[in-house]
Amino acid sequence: MSKLYIARGACSFGTHVAVRELGLPVELVKVKLREPGSLIYQVNPLGRVPALQLDDGALITESTAILQYLADQVPGTPLFAPAGSIERGQIQSWLSYIGTEIHVGSFRAINRPERYHPDPAEHTLVRERGAVQLKAGLSHIEKHLTGRQWLVGERFTIADAYLGVFIGWLARLGPEFADSAVLNGYREAYRARPSVQAALAFEQD
Amino acid sequence: MSKLYIARGACSFGTHVAVRELGLPVELVKVKLREPGSLIYQVNPLGRVPALQLDDGALITESTAILQYLADQVPGTPLFAPAGSIERGQIQSWLSYIGTEIHVGSFRAINRPERYHPDPAEHTLVRERGAVQLKAGLSHIEKHLTGRQWLVGERFTIADAYLGVFIGWLARLGPEFADSAVLNGYREAYRARPSVQAALAFEQD
Ligand SMILES: N[C@@H](CCC(=O)N[C@@H](CS)C(=O)NCC(=O)O)C(=O)O
Ligand SMILES: N[C@@H](CCC(=O)N[C@@H](CS)C(=O)NCC(=O)O)C(=O)O
Repeated sequence: MSKLYIARGACSFGTHVAVRELGLPVELVKVKLREPGSLIYQVNPLGRVPALQLDDGALITESTAILQYLADQVPGTPLFAPAGSIERGQIQSWLSYIGTEIHVGSFRAINRPERYHPDPAEHTLVRERGAVQLKAGLSHIEKHLTGRQWLVGERFTIADAYLGVFIGWLARLGPEFADSAVLNGYREAYRARPSVQAALAFEQD
Repeated sequence: MSKLYIARGACSFGTHVAVRELGLPVELVKVKLREPGSLIYQVNPLGRVPALQLDDGALITESTAILQYLADQVPGTPLFAPAGSIERGQIQSWLSYIGTEIHVGSFRAINRPERYHPDPAEHTLVRERGAVQLKAGLSHIEKHLTGRQWLVGERFTIADAYLGVFIGWLARLGPEFADSAVLNGYREAYRARPSVQAALAFEQD
């Protein structure tokens, strides 16, 4: 059986939700991050989650790759769209926008300011700039979601499995990130899914 | 006919190369970036390239989405792999790694330090941190490419069409980014492709 390596509350949550949505027989393995001796270093030399280890030992890393690989194991699933279709292109576009602009382009500056400036005294300013990038990225998403329940095709797709993670992280950032009715509605709809509830319970356990 | 919006020397180069490799009837439209009145703002409200406008008006943005969409217009192309295959997952993994770690995670701090710190006096330090991230990302890629010509499956794929762009950007960064025999060999093999030569000539024109 394939194994999906995840960490509590990390970006791997999107792939975890997708496994449950798709009903795939994938074993979920919880690991610690940034701890010497953690199992994750034996699986992925970069020490990062998510990482999907297939039966034959092959490893697939990167959220957007794993999400697509998992969905393609269930041809015809509503979580994705056929190869060559515009909808598939749009789902991939959102996956990429979320992975580049929201996760690495914004949250990384907020969560890992040391990657952008060596002096801890400057980290508050780096975090503030990250928050500005995040506001801009979210406003693009908010505009698109206005009048829509999900990102593409009026149904929950792997792009939503992924976006929901970062919308869920907003509350930690303070009230100025909790005031969008559109994004709050999205978060509630995400959280209401049985897959998300089961994934939260599993990770917190 | 679909239109691909690109800018000279920008990250859109990867999608431009893919159009030529795949022999697709896509019109290439060169635009200026960050110039008020540029056509790109009429096409993509974010003002960014690459952007692929389809016949019916639908827009697909984000390099990794456009690369996949284009390749999926040519089922069976050696530039990609079948839906559900491990090779496809690996190609997607590299697309994501390049888009997140190399482009946004590293080059953005180097090229747009103002996104990470408000004070221009600090931008040299931000750029230096970006260079550290870039070194780390490149060393992961270099290790993988040692003994290999291309990223996946011993053939040129859309992951290479994309990676070649950033390997090509390294020379601008100074000698400490030009000393890897593996990456230099990769850059030469990329440049030697007729598609890349034609794309360079078209963009410089
Ligand atoms: N672009 C990667 C990012 C993966 C990533 O940054 N994972 C974090 C958790 S959110 C991690 O494992 N960090 C541990 C570390 O970097 O040591 C993806 O989308 O999978
Ligand atoms: N994640 C996007 C990044 C696109 C991007 O940053 N494009 C740059 C050129 S390399 C751009 O158009 N910049 C103009 C601007 O931001 O105003 C992708 O992969 O397509």
